[in-house]
Amino acid sequence: QGQEGDPRAGRRLAAGVCSSCHGQNGIATLPGAPNLAGQNAAYVAAQLRAYREKERLQEQMNIVAEPLTDKQIGDLAAWYAAITITATVPGR
Amino acid sequence: QGQEGDPRAGRRLAAGVCSSCHGQNGIATLPGAPNLAGQNAAYVAAQLRAYREKERLQEQMNIVAEPLTDKQIGDLAAWYAAITITATVPGR
Repeated sequence: QGQEGDPRAGRRLAAGVCSSCHGQNGIATLPGAPNLAGQNAAYVAAQLRAYREKERLQEQMNIVAEPLTDKQIGDLAAWYAAITITATVPGR
Repeated sequence: QGQEGDPRAGRRLAAGVCSSCHGQNGIATLPGAPNLAGQNAAYVAAQLRAYREKERLQEQMNIVAEPLTDKQIGDLAAWYAAITITATVPGR
């Protein structure tokens, strides 16, 4: 599971499945869904596996993750990590 | 739980507790920890409650979240949502 995913394959897969809630650029379109843009690949992969194995429960995500292969999980994680983010802390 | 949190109070709380893994600006310092910068407040609050109630299991987070009050959860969620992020999708 440590193998690097293919962000291009992940991009294609995300466009059809994930983008409706997590946005085309990884900024979520639903307030209850997390932004995934620039998220750590190791974290995203671990969460997708947890959803797939139902170790982490969330209705839509358990359905979405169920058919995913380890390769597809790696590709999706690589895709979201490939989106460049900047973070600017508000003034005191 | 819908009440808006206080990002300044959340910033102070995060500095002492969360920043060691999630970074001073919400960009994680540990590969296994998620970035929280600009994350949706509703999502962060829901996850902190899930960790507190042990509906979502992760060793460090269950320990960290256990003593948090609903107000502190709201403040932390407001703080991370107050960090401005940009997301740039890589070229095709």
